Amino acid sequence: MSKEAFDFGFLIGSEGISTRHLKAGETIFNEGDPAAEVYVIWSGRVGIQLGDRIVDTLEANEIFGEMALIEDEPRSATAIALSDVELVPISELQFLLLVTRKPAFALEVMRVLAHRLRAADKAL
Amino acid sequence: MSKEAFDFGFLIGSEGISTRHLKAGETIFNEGDPAAEVYVIWSGRVGIQLGDRIVDTLEANEIFGEMALIEDEPRSATAIALSDVELVPISELQFLLLVTRKPAFALEVMRVLAHRLRAADKAL
Repeated sequence: MSKEAFDFGFLIGSEGISTRHLKAGETIFNEGDPAAEVYVIWSGRVGIQLGDRIVDTLEANEIFGEMALIEDEPRSATAIALSDVELVPISELQFLLLVTRKPAFALEVMRVLAHRLRAADKAL
Repeated sequence: MSKEAFDFGFLIGSEGISTRHLKAGETIFNEGDPAAEVYVIWSGRVGIQLGDRIVDTLEANEIFGEMALIEDEPRSATAIALSDVELVPISELQFLLLVTRKPAFALEVMRVLAHRLRAADKAL
């Protein structure tokens, strides 16, 4: 399947979706929190943290927070703004609508998950 | 999202989809092979093997082989029939059609990937 970068730009202006601003250092969610949203990074950098260790750094046009929402489990890691950040939060309902109406979005979420799984398997 | 077991039964009778039989011990694919299909286990048990080690055992109504297809990368592991097995092979085109026409299928693939990723992260 295509390896071209996916453009999340279509989200802006989609019904009910807007951006949220965070200052550097702010917490987006904590490990153990219930999960109600998936996020796309519009600008800035986000750190994924396990305990005190940053295990991943994400940048603009990347998605995160999908795992807990899809599994209906608590957050498996903490997410913090490493710089000033502009996020596009996507609620569970919006996520389901996107998957239904925009198969390319569903495939991109799968691609991200598969890529992270391959990286985790390699690290084992 | 719902944690109910997903029923892949709808696949049988879907256009262009049929089952494939393997004897115990047969190889379904080898690590490093190009990936052209995803599989749902109709009956029997499948082992996912890295080197000589079986890292996962899958049973009826489970999906496997999705990672390499989604990422367009070679197989990251070997899959072998641990018993006589009946598989439902799904080609890349069929997979794309299913994702487009059956959002519940797309969500199930995401759920499986997220679940495996959480397990891998915990093992790290």
